[in-house]
Amino acid sequence: MDLIARIRSRDVRAIARALTLVENGDEPFLAALDAGYAHIPHPERVGITGPPGAGKSTLTSSIIKNLRRQGRRVGVVAVDPSSPFSGGALLGDRLRMTEHALDEDVFVRSMAARGRFGGLAIGSHDACDVLALAAFDPVIVETVGVGQSEVDIARLADTTVVVLTPAAGDSVQALKAGIMEIADVVAINKADREGSEHLEEDIKEALELRAHQPGPLWLPPVVRTVATTDEGVDELVNAIAQHRTFLLSQGALPEVRAARSVARLTDLAGEALLRALRTGTRAKPLFERLCSQVRQGTISPRAAVNELLTSLKL
Amino acid sequence: MDLIARIRSRDVRAIARALTLVENGDEPFLAALDAGYAHIPHPERVGITGPPGAGKSTLTSSIIKNLRRQGRRVGVVAVDPSSPFSGGALLGDRLRMTEHALDEDVFVRSMAARGRFGGLAIGSHDACDVLALAAFDPVIVETVGVGQSEVDIARLADTTVVVLTPAAGDSVQALKAGIMEIADVVAINKADREGSEHLEEDIKEALELRAHQPGPLWLPPVVRTVATTDEGVDELVNAIAQHRTFLLSQGALPEVRAARSVARLTDLAGEALLRALRTGTRAKPLFERLCSQVRQGTISPRAAVNELLTSLKL
Repeated sequence: MDLIARIRSRDVRAIARALTLVENGDEPFLAALDAGYAHIPHPERVGITGPPGAGKSTLTSSIIKNLRRQGRRVGVVAVDPSSPFSGGALLGDRLRMTEHALDEDVFVRSMAARGRFGGLAIGSHDACDVLALAAFDPVIVETVGVGQSEVDIARLADTTVVVLTPAAGDSVQALKAGIMEIADVVAINKADREGSEHLEEDIKEALELRAHQPGPLWLPPVVRTVATTDEGVDELVNAIAQHRTFLLSQGALPEVRAARSVARLTDLAGEALLRALRTGTRAKPLFERLCSQVRQGTISPRAAVNELLTSLKL
Repeated sequence: MDLIARIRSRDVRAIARALTLVENGDEPFLAALDAGYAHIPHPERVGITGPPGAGKSTLTSSIIKNLRRQGRRVGVVAVDPSSPFSGGALLGDRLRMTEHALDEDVFVRSMAARGRFGGLAIGSHDACDVLALAAFDPVIVETVGVGQSEVDIARLADTTVVVLTPAAGDSVQALKAGIMEIADVVAINKADREGSEHLEEDIKEALELRAHQPGPLWLPPVVRTVATTDEGVDELVNAIAQHRTFLLSQGALPEVRAARSVARLTDLAGEALLRALRTGTRAKPLFERLCSQVRQGTISPRAAVNELLTSLKL
């Protein structure tokens, strides 16, 4: 039986193997996955993001517990941004999810976000598809919100949960800076700590600014949680379900998915075009000559790119 | 007098204007900057990076004070990664550098890292060139180490200073995960805090692993600093100078600069190729059709990219 068929039959080792192939960018496997593109199911996709230390992994683990009681099979892709600074801490976090390690209806996989093009996006998309093939629903994508990744996660998920804590750093300024743009649901985790009421007020104020925007109104619910004791997690899971109901009632899911596919196309195209500079019949010799001229300082990088574009006649 | 000439004459308002044009990706200005590419000076470039909260801005401010006593003109590009989470806190940090606001021989500019292609790199390169034209030497690039940015900063600078603190998160694991690869000098800031001796031991151990690599040996010095009281900053500035002396003695600077130019070319090429998909005579209609097919789900994003590459005959 081929690997795709084994994934479909929910073979845990096949799923693990497939995710490794995805992580390595294995061309034959990606082509096989792609050949069955039209038949890949579309499970609910939930994104969970927030600053380092917000308790995202613990919260995800609580969410899994809740969803398991509902009998759902839960797949999780936990994306580590490739930061040498945060690497260690994140790996520590992942360990907290091992409580589900013996449950065949839960699959948690950590992946490093690599590459310049859409970092998070490319491998994570394929990983989500593998989990979808294995009949996991929902598929949860968890990532620390740094740099580009929180925007990527918003594109990857139908429903994006932003996790904040009453701690230094999650200031009002930060909230207004754009995070509210991507939140469909906000979780205030570690809500038993001092400052959580104040944070809740700030968040609600920021969200009301958004309520004045045109379009069908979804006011993101703000849910207080204590992930370590599962407090508030029922409410959080409900809030996620409500957002899905909202999307369905608006007929918005096809558009969400279409936009996601186009974003994926753009990421893949960027990656492929850069690769073409190293391997393409026309592009490679041209790019090599330009690199050499740029190295020698006889031409500026910007002038070289202009020449590249002119010569390639795109 | 044109803007480039005014920058060369060290006109502060012209420099500020030019950096705004760089930040906005203003094509006419970038073309003018590029026209004089061969005549842009090559000042010493120092990168300063580390995790959020390490005190990078305060340390940079101390370094500026030290360099000013040596009579040097110091330009700083402080790059904020475009994270909605960290936005607020970083802006607060920048304020600490205002003590140099009245000094015409110090220029500090905060820039947002934007875009997918080389994020940090593209605008920062041009900003460094503007500061170089205005005869700042050294030019310091400061950035928080998240995601791709600490790798980018290593490419942008001749000497990269990694700032760590004896705080949670800067664990041994994190140190080994790759940060030591980019450090030419390590500063242990907030060295008056508990745990700094332990951190120093860990760092030195990690650095010794690197010492077994082939090639001319530079063992990055580890300097203990307390930026708020300027403690250890003389030693840090000395360590940076020693690394420069090492590069000069090895004749390595031309290679460092050549590699930097090629990296810049690659970043710009990636950006330009993606732009060509939206504007190119051949590429645009093709890409639009593929986008539309991908939206409708009649073709997978990966299959669309394959068709794109085949049709463009790169």
